[in-house]
Amino acid sequence: MKILVTGFDPFAGAQQNPAWEAVSRLPQQLGRATIVSLQVPTIFNRSAAIVHAAIQRERPDVVVSVGQAGGRSALSLERVAINLDDARIADNAGQAPHDQPIQLAGATAYFTQLPVKAMRTAIRQAGVPAQLSTTAGIFVCNHLMYQVQYQRATEFSTLKAGFIHIPYLPSQVVDRPGVPSLALTEAVKGLTAALSVL
Amino acid sequence: MKILVTGFDPFAGAQQNPAWEAVSRLPQQLGRATIVSLQVPTIFNRSAAIVHAAIQRERPDVVVSVGQAGGRSALSLERVAINLDDARIADNAGQAPHDQPIQLAGATAYFTQLPVKAMRTAIRQAGVPAQLSTTAGIFVCNHLMYQVQYQRATEFSTLKAGFIHIPYLPSQVVDRPGVPSLALTEAVKGLTAALSVL
Amino acid sequence: MKILVTGFDPFAGAQQNPAWEAVSRLPQQLGRATIVSLQVPTIFNRSAAIVHAAIQRERPDVVVSVGQAGGRSALSLERVAINLDDARIADNAGQAPHDQPIQLAGATAYFTQLPVKAMRTAIRQAGVPAQLSTTAGIFVCNHLMYQVQYQRATEFSTLKAGFIHIPYLPSQVVDRPGVPSLALTEAVKGLTAALSVL
Amino acid sequence: MKILVTGFDPFAGAQQNPAWEAVSRLPQQLGRATIVSLQVPTIFNRSAAIVHAAIQRERPDVVVSVGQAGGRSALSLERVAINLDDARIADNAGQAPHDQPIQLAGATAYFTQLPVKAMRTAIRQAGVPAQLSTTAGIFVCNHLMYQVQYQRATEFSTLKAGFIHIPYLPSQVVDRPGVPSLALTEAVKGLTAALSVL
Repeated sequence: MKILVTGFDPFAGAQQNPAWEAVSRLPQQLGRATIVSLQVPTIFNRSAAIVHAAIQRERPDVVVSVGQAGGRSALSLERVAINLDDARIADNAGQAPHDQPIQLAGATAYFTQLPVKAMRTAIRQAGVPAQLSTTAGIFVCNHLMYQVQYQRATEFSTLKAGFIHIPYLPSQVVDRPGVPSLALTEAVKGLTAALSVL
Repeated sequence: MKILVTGFDPFAGAQQNPAWEAVSRLPQQLGRATIVSLQVPTIFNRSAAIVHAAIQRERPDVVVSVGQAGGRSALSLERVAINLDDARIADNAGQAPHDQPIQLAGATAYFTQLPVKAMRTAIRQAGVPAQLSTTAGIFVCNHLMYQVQYQRATEFSTLKAGFIHIPYLPSQVVDRPGVPSLALTEAVKGLTAALSVL
Repeated sequence: MKILVTGFDPFAGAQQNPAWEAVSRLPQQLGRATIVSLQVPTIFNRSAAIVHAAIQRERPDVVVSVGQAGGRSALSLERVAINLDDARIADNAGQAPHDQPIQLAGATAYFTQLPVKAMRTAIRQAGVPAQLSTTAGIFVCNHLMYQVQYQRATEFSTLKAGFIHIPYLPSQVVDRPGVPSLALTEAVKGLTAALSVL
Repeated sequence: MKILVTGFDPFAGAQQNPAWEAVSRLPQQLGRATIVSLQVPTIFNRSAAIVHAAIQRERPDVVVSVGQAGGRSALSLERVAINLDDARIADNAGQAPHDQPIQLAGATAYFTQLPVKAMRTAIRQAGVPAQLSTTAGIFVCNHLMYQVQYQRATEFSTLKAGFIHIPYLPSQVVDRPGVPSLALTEAVKGLTAALSVL
């Protein structure tokens, strides 16, 4: 089995994105699964185009995209992506679409094909906090999750895909006392546990 | 310089206390300072008696006590201890004093002698979230911080002493999604940075 | 214009549901709009059947359903309902469906037809905190929002419908210090402001 | 019995301070107690001088000071004031003292004389969220609480005094979704209940 794991690059002026930091530290082999890591830009459409090219090139069985969810305290396994872009801040190309559908011909939403409850159990057994989530937001994270599902619906029918949000790194919240974080080692441990059940 | 660092044992049914987990992983030598680690029981009075004996035995220049502050997301440098025990749960000896002064002849409160703002800066520079706090609570943490100050006021006048609260470990909140945590490696890194400025 | 506003009854052992408390205090006439209030039981399917009967009977132009979102601090205007029941607690008929689609032939999700951004502005101008939300959860609130949209899609094509979540009442959190609440007068004021823009 | 209740004026650019809004709406007579309301400026020292003059003029049996605690969700009955000013923002006279004792000859801290547990019970029975607190902060609220206690210790030995913090008003958090608030009617109801047990 081959798993493509994508992680976003830093955005909104940050020096790091915990998503790529964690994804780039995953092992290349996990049991019988091969893991291919891919950095994607925090840019509407372009992130999706890059993942599309990687799916064509790598032919993975599963795509797991990883993004930062600032303010959450646990790994969040996303259950659904919705057909809506509505950005409060600009992406890394300066775009901030408002109330736009992602795909005019797409479904209103797509559910993930990942076994999110088994993944949640595995992450928790690894000692890392985990939760299910029913919203991936309305920024680039939801956009990419939706787009990969749309690609699956229209081109790659056997693909399984999903999205995992991870908290800020401790170094991102050093002077924001009320804001939770998760150490990089914990994020990597949790992601690894989640991928192990695939 | 010799620094006595105390960490509480698990309480309220927990398997671990991040305080002792972190304290027991501190280096024994830090620059020119010698660090002596000491586990103390989460018990009113008895914790203070054990630290008192250790101060007599070890003659440290500084005592830093460390305890768990479940629900906080950053290392908290306590500024003040108050002369009040008012427990909502029992300590590890089954005691739950209500509205009791800790020392009838003691001051209403004692401020720490630790350079808490310099310690906060050092912790943050190490990439770990940190804050000052003006309440160590009204359970065994505040009790021990107060008692060591009282010992200082009455017996060990050259001693410097203080208290640092640390968040839950990730493994303690695996199924409590909204509750923040801090990895053990981060807590150790933060404590080490804090001790480095002494 | 006629607006049907539904509010759930108490559940999970509570004495009150702020949803019905607020809905039952709405004026019957608001500008040129007639408001019809309807209590619905916190029961999967049955809540939807009762609203379906009310739509047939009252022929409203708009249906606004209101439910409690314990833990949120602002009125939440829901943007989307998803085709998923996954209850952590039993509804008022003892049902707790897990990982079930609501309608086998339904869309994966439906977006609201309500002008949620204009409603948000109106609520805030009335001095009441308001936010948009992209998840109505996976319990009876999302279920009813989804079902009314399904009824719209299959039967009542000119209907506009949506969902508003309101926080706990202060009396529900008297001894839960960290949990936010909203006074009933504020909730009524906010709902009234929201309905005024329809 | 005469109760002097003080409430701060707006600060940090705000249009309102919920403290004065609530205090100014208290009844003038409550059972056998006469209530005298007094607005005080959010200014170090000057707030204390104004309350001192009012104590001399009115000769109250009890002084209850009320201030805003932005971010808290419940009425907070303060148990202790500490001898420390350490402002992060300027007061209404542009002063921002750092690490200063309030009274060089004062105690490290003073406990309140108010029956805070009975007051907590009374507030909750009135349906309003309430908690005890062991920190009134290090800004003007703690300053005034401390200064009134110092006046008591040095001049007005029979006086009872204390401090109650109240959350933001809903209108102050209309566009800050995660920040809790409490309606003015609830704050007035809670304060009235608290004063009723004196």
